[in-house]
Amino acid sequence: MAVRAAVAGASGYAGGELLRLLLGHPDVEIGALTGHSNAGQKLGGLQPHLLPLAGRVLEPTTADVLDGHDVVFLALPHGQSAEVAEQLGDDVLVIDMGADFRLEDAADWEKFYGSPHAGTWPYGLPELPGARTALAGARRIAVPGCYPTAVSLALFPAYAAGLAEPEAVITAASGTSGAGKSPKAHLLGSEVMGSMSPYGVGGGHRHTPEMIQNLSAAAGEPVTVSFTPTLAPMPRGILATCSAKAKPGTTAHDVRTAYEKALADEPFVHLLPEGQWPATASVYGSNAVQIQVAYDEAAGRLIAISAIDNLTKGTAGGAVQSMNIALGLPEDTGLSLTGVAP
Amino acid sequence: MAVRAAVAGASGYAGGELLRLLLGHPDVEIGALTGHSNAGQKLGGLQPHLLPLAGRVLEPTTADVLDGHDVVFLALPHGQSAEVAEQLGDDVLVIDMGADFRLEDAADWEKFYGSPHAGTWPYGLPELPGARTALAGARRIAVPGCYPTAVSLALFPAYAAGLAEPEAVITAASGTSGAGKSPKAHLLGSEVMGSMSPYGVGGGHRHTPEMIQNLSAAAGEPVTVSFTPTLAPMPRGILATCSAKAKPGTTAHDVRTAYEKALADEPFVHLLPEGQWPATASVYGSNAVQIQVAYDEAAGRLIAISAIDNLTKGTAGGAVQSMNIALGLPEDTGLSLTGVAP
Amino acid sequence: MAVRAAVAGASGYAGGELLRLLLGHPDVEIGALTGHSNAGQKLGGLQPHLLPLAGRVLEPTTADVLDGHDVVFLALPHGQSAEVAEQLGDDVLVIDMGADFRLEDAADWEKFYGSPHAGTWPYGLPELPGARTALAGARRIAVPGCYPTAVSLALFPAYAAGLAEPEAVITAASGTSGAGKSPKAHLLGSEVMGSMSPYGVGGGHRHTPEMIQNLSAAAGEPVTVSFTPTLAPMPRGILATCSAKAKPGTTAHDVRTAYEKALADEPFVHLLPEGQWPATASVYGSNAVQIQVAYDEAAGRLIAISAIDNLTKGTAGGAVQSMNIALGLPEDTGLSLTGVAP
Amino acid sequence: MAVRAAVAGASGYAGGELLRLLLGHPDVEIGALTGHSNAGQKLGGLQPHLLPLAGRVLEPTTADVLDGHDVVFLALPHGQSAEVAEQLGDDVLVIDMGADFRLEDAADWEKFYGSPHAGTWPYGLPELPGARTALAGARRIAVPGCYPTAVSLALFPAYAAGLAEPEAVITAASGTSGAGKSPKAHLLGSEVMGSMSPYGVGGGHRHTPEMIQNLSAAAGEPVTVSFTPTLAPMPRGILATCSAKAKPGTTAHDVRTAYEKALADEPFVHLLPEGQWPATASVYGSNAVQIQVAYDEAAGRLIAISAIDNLTKGTAGGAVQSMNIALGLPEDTGLSLTGVAP
Repeated sequence: MAVRAAVAGASGYAGGELLRLLLGHPDVEIGALTGHSNAGQKLGGLQPHLLPLAGRVLEPTTADVLDGHDVVFLALPHGQSAEVAEQLGDDVLVIDMGADFRLEDAADWEKFYGSPHAGTWPYGLPELPGARTALAGARRIAVPGCYPTAVSLALFPAYAAGLAEPEAVITAASGTSGAGKSPKAHLLGSEVMGSMSPYGVGGGHRHTPEMIQNLSAAAGEPVTVSFTPTLAPMPRGILATCSAKAKPGTTAHDVRTAYEKALADEPFVHLLPEGQWPATASVYGSNAVQIQVAYDEAAGRLIAISAIDNLTKGTAGGAVQSMNIALGLPEDTGLSLTGVAP
Repeated sequence: MAVRAAVAGASGYAGGELLRLLLGHPDVEIGALTGHSNAGQKLGGLQPHLLPLAGRVLEPTTADVLDGHDVVFLALPHGQSAEVAEQLGDDVLVIDMGADFRLEDAADWEKFYGSPHAGTWPYGLPELPGARTALAGARRIAVPGCYPTAVSLALFPAYAAGLAEPEAVITAASGTSGAGKSPKAHLLGSEVMGSMSPYGVGGGHRHTPEMIQNLSAAAGEPVTVSFTPTLAPMPRGILATCSAKAKPGTTAHDVRTAYEKALADEPFVHLLPEGQWPATASVYGSNAVQIQVAYDEAAGRLIAISAIDNLTKGTAGGAVQSMNIALGLPEDTGLSLTGVAP
Repeated sequence: MAVRAAVAGASGYAGGELLRLLLGHPDVEIGALTGHSNAGQKLGGLQPHLLPLAGRVLEPTTADVLDGHDVVFLALPHGQSAEVAEQLGDDVLVIDMGADFRLEDAADWEKFYGSPHAGTWPYGLPELPGARTALAGARRIAVPGCYPTAVSLALFPAYAAGLAEPEAVITAASGTSGAGKSPKAHLLGSEVMGSMSPYGVGGGHRHTPEMIQNLSAAAGEPVTVSFTPTLAPMPRGILATCSAKAKPGTTAHDVRTAYEKALADEPFVHLLPEGQWPATASVYGSNAVQIQVAYDEAAGRLIAISAIDNLTKGTAGGAVQSMNIALGLPEDTGLSLTGVAP
Repeated sequence: MAVRAAVAGASGYAGGELLRLLLGHPDVEIGALTGHSNAGQKLGGLQPHLLPLAGRVLEPTTADVLDGHDVVFLALPHGQSAEVAEQLGDDVLVIDMGADFRLEDAADWEKFYGSPHAGTWPYGLPELPGARTALAGARRIAVPGCYPTAVSLALFPAYAAGLAEPEAVITAASGTSGAGKSPKAHLLGSEVMGSMSPYGVGGGHRHTPEMIQNLSAAAGEPVTVSFTPTLAPMPRGILATCSAKAKPGTTAHDVRTAYEKALADEPFVHLLPEGQWPATASVYGSNAVQIQVAYDEAAGRLIAISAIDNLTKGTAGGAVQSMNIALGLPEDTGLSLTGVAP
């Protein structure tokens, strides 16, 4: 019997990617689609790549429209999920693709988002220690941010194995879809093609506390994070270059072994063979994560690099993966390991 | 019971896209994979996006390796398919993704390819009049060229309805994967990013006789084709802008009606609503074709524009669609209508 | 003694490119810079590539601010130039980079722009027959549209030599800067990277009457134009593929000879050697035009292809070239023939 | 009286960019152009953007051809400069754009390049302390690598002011032209568009010892460098994200002040106003360097980010700037501060 899923925020990039995945999910039937300023419009003009849904009309985002589905995905601007969620039945699986329920620390939330903290839900990054247990049977799930997904998967094996000092330095390059579909001058094609540029430098990016939360949990001690995001001239993908000083006595062999062990049974996270490096193109449109790790003896640092598709594993694919776990479906149902390349 | 499929030429772009599709095809089991200079290598280093096949080793392209499969896909350089094909059993479904068996006219073949004509196989563009009948049960199929796919689907409704004069003028923009994976200086990223350039201008492109063949068959009279291909700064996709003078007395309503009628029941070819135009991004990685048509009264011309993914509908998707028909499977098995966008 | 130049509309793409060129012009001193919504802001935040002008503050676009300069460039939205221009002294050289004064036919203007016709100024495409004479000493100049520049230069030699039938078919690919700097969803980097798409199909593009005007003048008879613009995934550049049936008796030699003769003495328009084709990357940031021409005997058509930088030769470079002529400076002062490639 | 300049290696990207700059240099006359496998060919087919030199024919790279010029630029593969240079007169200004004479430590050279060390020449990064003195009147100059240029300019102010701990962590994104014009499969447009990927991770990149050399000299103590280069989907540009722990007691004000002081009089290196970040598009085709710096108090790190054009300031522009100093010309002759954007 099909799972009926509603999507709030169906006209944006996260909502569109989610619908692309749900269209290929054998156990899901797509129910209500809602929008805000686009309510009343056909999806065909808003998401022209979703041909099978071209005739569907967006409804307004209200609890009335969304309730009664088995699963409700919220792809709403930050700060809008709580109000909708509390009106939905406790038996409805609510999956928030926004930030509202990701952070455990209310002070962090208020500092970075400037509004009262709504709470903390089970965290939809199944690969982290203990996460699958928390997700099984859950009826509320907070999908991680795209950068924290890429960074946490790259570094948690090192921290969990006690190989890295608790000061992580991260530079990540993201495709422009991470910045959303609202038209802004600096996101015009004319501006971004041929250009790399940083933003949110110096600790200001909102995904920083989420990384600190994940890495500190893995390390069992507080980890600081110096995070620099950059905008890359591509529509999708995150390449996260993460490093930390190695703890004294660490060898290259220790590092390799820790990653092999931590990732051995993961269906979506692939530690590449030595000598091969991740590329965002290789995971384009897929839920796969490519990881590689190196130990730079001269600098005394461990470098872990991950590539994900920010819209798939980084958002909508992570959401579907978490839904599968919550509902007791095989974790990889409807999710692809194969990138669309070249 | 699964169909066992072998792929000759698994390390190139056409072969890689085919494997991506076959990995998602519920009725296919992937058998032997062969290469030429890459025989003996693991696929993981050659096609890093095909993670589920990363450990598979390429075998040499010989009849011994390929025979015994239910289906053999040939993704070989032009001129090499005939020799392999004739060594394979008559009951094997051989699907040639090269040009060798596309043209009916031996003189055309010799003029454009400079070698003796190998023959003509059923033509794998199911949307053309009569094509599905020829493909059903076939054991030899010639997959069309990517440009002829885009152009023929854009213009056959006009010619079949007798609305267009037999002189077609076509400009098409193709992504760089159409030029293959052999390293050449003019195909370097440094050269193609930020640049549009034509090639094969003035009637010299090898796909021209194939377009003439298809359009003349639809029109029931000889059609001339002025075809200008251009290389666009994107990895995939073809946008074909096709036009012809309208026959006297044609109205905009006649044109719209002819296209609606011709394409009404096609699973993959979508005539867009009036006012919406095709975009290659919307069909990225999918087997869908977006079509729109206009009548320019001042110039007296009918303009039909199509967007396809050159590697999917233009090559590997067309091959799988034809395989499905030949084997009696539902035509859309394993094929997506949904583009990977943005 | 330096020519003092003011730029109205300094925060847009056309204004920015003009300032880039004026910064390198040995005879020009940059005077007032004006903006509309950006008045009061520093240029450094709006045009970060114009480092030498980073500290300049935009003034409001008023006749008071602009008058008193030797040259005033108007890079304003269509329909706003006339009001400013009529308040400027007759001795001021006013160069309009908008459309307002390009068309000779008031009915065409009203049909395509929907407002009363403001008049016709000498046309700033010096390469057209008679244009340099009209520009010498002029105090009002209308800079051509970017598409008409590319198309007229590609086809006027054929029409002037009587080699082409008066029905031109044109497909042109433009970089996204041609659509301006106003943020719109379909121009986001996420949307345009990896995508080709048409717009204004079927005779609706506003540059069509301007092409008809130029080609008809060259041919000495009315020429119809079927024009399809497409948006290409690159920031700059236009590649125009133009064709027409050859007049009976035309030979490939006639065509080549006509182009060699027409373009022999042009400083910026280069007919490439046979076998080499234009590429937009080769003229990136330069005022050069690359042209190549072919005769397709089988289709009976002449194909002329041009590549320009839409912001340089297509807008700001054409404006400076015309200014040089009007002021009696060497025509190529401050203008480069060298593209920024790769 | 014009300086006569020869260019060895005129068909590659570095040679092409150098010629673009020399064409605009008022004091230079372009003499012999040489190539290796391309000797005998016209430049027009190899560098189609250099229209004014289209008819020039490449000569073989021999001392006979090169000697007798005032300046000889060597844009040759690593390891080939020494043999040519020693055959040229002592009065000839020889500017090596390769790596051969950059490193002071012979052991570093041998470790990273695998051949005997050829020597050390004055280092063509005029902004480093003491560099201009060494370059004035020099007749042998080693142009820095593109990455070391971006990184050294970003970090030397911090090290010279004693604000940073001697462990630098650097991630840099480079356009594909940095990898040269030799056709390789992983550099095809199909592979690089839409993809970010790292290479030379873990201390293996040949530019690492050059960075260590520069930063250690600025710091007055040995600095370790953890350097991760990444390939970005753009033809040109380097964005270098550089960080180090701040020395105890450092404040944000100290950092800003140190950078303002160090860069105040530099003609090409611009410290951006607070709140504005570098972008590679802003320095496209120019010799300008954009720098911004931040202090992340929570992580205790100083982050300095620079953007350069790898072919201009990173190679050919740096070479011309150094030539100007060596010859006693104004340092900015023939060099632009204005990027080609958008």
